[in-house]
Parts: sequence; structure tokens; C-alpha cells
Amino acid sequence: MQKELLSYIAGFLDGDGCVMAQLVHRKDYRLGYQIRLSIVFYQKEQNVQFLEWLKTKLVYGYIRRRNDGMAEYTIVGADYTAKILKKLLPYLRLKRKLAEIVLEISKMPKKITPEDLLKYSELVDLTAKYTYSKKRTNTKSVVEDYFKKHKILSP
Amino acid sequence: MQKELLSYIAGFLDGDGCVMAQLVHRKDYRLGYQIRLSIVFYQKEQNVQFLEWLKTKLVYGYIRRRNDGMAEYTIVGADYTAKILKKLLPYLRLKRKLAEIVLEISKMPKKITPEDLLKYSELVDLTAKYTYSKKRTNTKSVVEDYFKKHKILSP
Repeated sequence: MQKELLSYIAGFLDGDGCVMAQLVHRKDYRLGYQIRLSIVFYQKEQNVQFLEWLKTKLVYGYIRRRNDGMAEYTIVGADYTAKILKKLLPYLRLKRKLAEIVLEISKMPKKITPEDLLKYSELVDLTAKYTYSKKRTNTKSVVEDYFKKHKILSP
Repeated sequence: MQKELLSYIAGFLDGDGCVMAQLVHRKDYRLGYQIRLSIVFYQKEQNVQFLEWLKTKLVYGYIRRRNDGMAEYTIVGADYTAKILKKLLPYLRLKRKLAEIVLEISKMPKKITPEDLLKYSELVDLTAKYTYSKKRTNTKSVVEDYFKKHKILSP
């Protein structure tokens, strides 16, 4: 992609995009929790064409029309999120630090150990500082409690 | 300014900036109403440095810390607004049409006739379509009523 285009998208992401790292509870997962990385853009449904244009540039992800007049373009997954953030990183300003932490998290191994999940959960907690997230229910300490309860981390 | 920088700012403006054309009532004005053009960027106060950086690039306008934890960077006036929009126009996407109308309005004469004020008020009304403005109290028809009441437009 051209530098001008990357700059534009970085500016738009800084202004109106979301970069997220979340701990998601998964009953069927060995460790009970998964780290989900994503990038999301929201627009009024009448601007869905803009999101479609954005998707032709960023390639990954999908667009969903919600039932409240909004449309969202979501890129989920460590690999896709990292591929896009790596390209945008040199041009990001407001979300650069957040993107750097999310890129660090994206290096987590596919088959993750309990110790590693806790280590990366700490970075997930750290992103809350940059996303102004008010209510995070799943944090490192929730994962720790789950591990204790399910005897996942042996001493 | 570099193309990359203009692209970034255009992306940011498309995402999180406001381009406004408003009819403002002025008791001390000959015609009772003034057309105000402006560009505004809002950020949480902790990101005020970003606005300060933006101002070093766009030069005009001023930054104000509000008392609700937000900061805003405002560029007011037809000349300043037009200078900035002309530079950003080639890179704008979501707000390009809006910027074009505001640039058209910026051509209004300094010493405006009642007929011209009505003509440009129509363009101001048109911008509401692109800003999703819900409540506009001052519209062309309000100016027309004012002109009738104060016998400003002679038949």
C-alpha cells in the first residue's frame, strides 16, 4: 500500500477506530480463557461504502450491518490484527503505544501454556490504560482465579 | 505540508473531526445573522498534546481545555477554515462533499447583501445533511423571517 493511503488509514484509526485486546471466557478451552485481538471501525450505515472501501485496502475482516443504524468493520485474530497494525504503526500517533502492546501480545504462542497466558493477560490489562475502557470484567486476576479453581497452574 | 501528513490529518478529520457551517444570531449585525465556518477537533484532555501537535501543522485556531475533561482545538472563520480545507480536500473521503460545500460558502463576500446571505444560508442548510445535525435552530427560513420582520429585504 502507498504511504499516503497508510497515513490516511492511520489518521482515521487514530480518530475513530478501535484497537482491542480482550480476555474472552471459553468454556470449551483448555485454559478457560482466550486472548482476542481485534481492530474495529464503526460508521453510520449510510457510510457503509466507506467501510467497504477500507476493507478492499486492509483485505482481512468482515463488515456487519447492525440493527441500530450502524455498520461495523471488524478484523479479528492475532495474525490479521498484527499484519495490519505493523503496516500502520509508523503512521499512528494517538494509538501507537496501544498498537505496540497489541503487537507484543500478537506474538503469543498458538498453543499457549498457563504461565504464558498469565504473562500476556498482564499486557491485555495494560491496554485498558490506552483504550479508556471503563468496565473490564476479564482481567489477569480473573484468569488467575480460574486457574486456581480448576487447578490449572500447578505450584 | 507533506502529502503523508495531509493524508493523516484528512483521515483523522474524517474519523473524529467536525467541519461546521452555522448561522449565528448577532444582535449588533446589520443583517442579524452571520455565517460561521469552523473546524473542530475534540480529545480527552490527556491527549491535549496531540491537539497541540496538530496546531503546529494547521497553524490557525486555538486550543481550549473545557471543564469536563475534554480539550478542543477550534479553527473559526471563513478564511482560516478555507485555507485548511483546500489543503485537505484531495485526501478527504467521508467529509469531502461537506468540505466542498463549506469551501463554496467561504467565497461569500465580506460585506454581504441580504440576498447573498439568503443564498449562502441555503448552502448552510445543505451542510446539515452531511453533518447529521439533529437540531438546527437557525436556518435560511429563520433568516428570511428576520428579514421580513425587520424589513431588511425590500421587494
